[in-house]
Amino acid sequence: MIKKYSKLIAAAIDAKKFAYDPVTGIGVGAAVLTTEGNIYKGCNVQSVISGLGTCAERCAIDNAIAHGAYNFQAIAVSFPSRNSTRPCGACLQIIHELSEIKDIDTQIICLNKFGDVVEETSIRKLLPKGYGPKESKKDVKQYRINKDK
Amino acid sequence: MIKKYSKLIAAAIDAKKFAYDPVTGIGVGAAVLTTEGNIYKGCNVQSVISGLGTCAERCAIDNAIAHGAYNFQAIAVSFPSRNSTRPCGACLQIIHELSEIKDIDTQIICLNKFGDVVEETSIRKLLPKGYGPKESKKDVKQYRINKDK
Amino acid sequence: MIKKYSKLIAAAIDAKKFAYDPVTGIGVGAAVLTTEGNIYKGCNVQSVISGLGTCAERCAIDNAIAHGAYNFQAIAVSFPSRNSTRPCGACLQIIHELSEIKDIDTQIICLNKFGDVVEETSIRKLLPKGYGPKESKKDVKQYRINKDK
Amino acid sequence: MIKKYSKLIAAAIDAKKFAYDPVTGIGVGAAVLTTEGNIYKGCNVQSVISGLGTCAERCAIDNAIAHGAYNFQAIAVSFPSRNSTRPCGACLQIIHELSEIKDIDTQIICLNKFGDVVEETSIRKLLPKGYGPKESKKDVKQYRINKDK
Repeated sequence: MIKKYSKLIAAAIDAKKFAYDPVTGIGVGAAVLTTEGNIYKGCNVQSVISGLGTCAERCAIDNAIAHGAYNFQAIAVSFPSRNSTRPCGACLQIIHELSEIKDIDTQIICLNKFGDVVEETSIRKLLPKGYGPKESKKDVKQYRINKDK
Repeated sequence: MIKKYSKLIAAAIDAKKFAYDPVTGIGVGAAVLTTEGNIYKGCNVQSVISGLGTCAERCAIDNAIAHGAYNFQAIAVSFPSRNSTRPCGACLQIIHELSEIKDIDTQIICLNKFGDVVEETSIRKLLPKGYGPKESKKDVKQYRINKDK
Repeated sequence: MIKKYSKLIAAAIDAKKFAYDPVTGIGVGAAVLTTEGNIYKGCNVQSVISGLGTCAERCAIDNAIAHGAYNFQAIAVSFPSRNSTRPCGACLQIIHELSEIKDIDTQIICLNKFGDVVEETSIRKLLPKGYGPKESKKDVKQYRINKDK
Repeated sequence: MIKKYSKLIAAAIDAKKFAYDPVTGIGVGAAVLTTEGNIYKGCNVQSVISGLGTCAERCAIDNAIAHGAYNFQAIAVSFPSRNSTRPCGACLQIIHELSEIKDIDTQIICLNKFGDVVEETSIRKLLPKGYGPKESKKDVKQYRINKDK
């Protein structure tokens, strides 16, 4: 299972090198795999204003959407900790929202600071019954096909 | 002046096509020009959760940072309105923060829905004396050189 | 169980009347119960900028902190939907972060549009193993005692 | 001019004592004065997740809205710095948005760490031509009358 995500995992680890983290010095890397098989990277972008930073997961997702990809098979995150950790609730919320477009149970692969896979889980396991486009009656069908090439 | 930004402007207009805007249907496009001459695009990424969306300007900046570029000569924004408008305060804050790394007065080019340049201004004009890394004593010198190729 | 939260539930329902929701017209109300037995209300505060809104849960928490209360026994949320729904991931993250201060398993009471309790759960059930002060090595002991009277 | 804001200034300074700032240890206090003459306080609420903190200004505004007040005559902010600084762009954006409800030029009073007024300015000076409800065609007239008592 993990084998099929080896490129994605390598991308998440690589993405960490560009982290903009002047506030805490703690870099995080992430990468998303689209349903078409493309990979987009992201790193955390901190801000001296506590409410304006971007997590690595979110950065990777926004990078993908900036290229026309909305549907994700999996996301890998390279955390700075020794032990297992997981994407924050805000990132889970965004992963959930987008996963509703095509009812995909986006896989979530958590890596520790050594690059080991410490957990392989999914958005439905981490944020079951999340609030999304369905509850708010927003039609997201137009985003069912990724527009990136 | 604008002529030298023609590619950037075209990129901002083009970026709008990927906007993820299921909440209001109002798409925005943006593009940043790095000090090395590279261009990164972004579009708005709305969320059914009112606090979790990303503006197009921010999306373009995060896209650039995900590629290792932190220093921006200019940003162009393709707004959906007929008349002049400007980046929101949160985007100005981020542009300001990053502009402090190399003391660049990042140029801001505002386009209307027809693709006309309605205003050409700069971050120092729109958010003078903004709070940034200097005030919070964060060392951002390590980001003075863009790492993207 | 619910009986002991009857005042909290009434407060969450009442809070909805002040919702600032010009974007979607969908109001949400919330209320937190501190470990000292005080109640603070909140409503959603939308923004025309998609990233700058505040959820009702967050508004109630910020209201409490503005009064010196950081430790919460329970939070009740009055949702606008007919069926069950839950706080968004970003709100769960903040509830989790604060719950780490005193290792409290903050109770979460979800109400539908009719004021019925549709789910009674807790932060540990909804966001197990969330990333918080412990992982980021931030000392939050100084907030163990609520300072409000 | 400042004399008439003496209570507001005292409230902003007092609010700082409740700051939740485990990430940087830098507390900020704020207070808003409604058009009815009521005062609501706020402090910064940091988060270990860089995008989820709340500024003191925003906290005070959300506190006011949680009590039914949307229209503000003035806001005072007690900054932790020696010299002059100003609200961040995101806070200016929210102040601007709400100021459009009744076309009020909300006064902004900036205090340094000693409690001295270092600048007295206004939202129209700091964020002229900000994007708000008008541009996004959202009707905010229903919020023209504060509902708090």
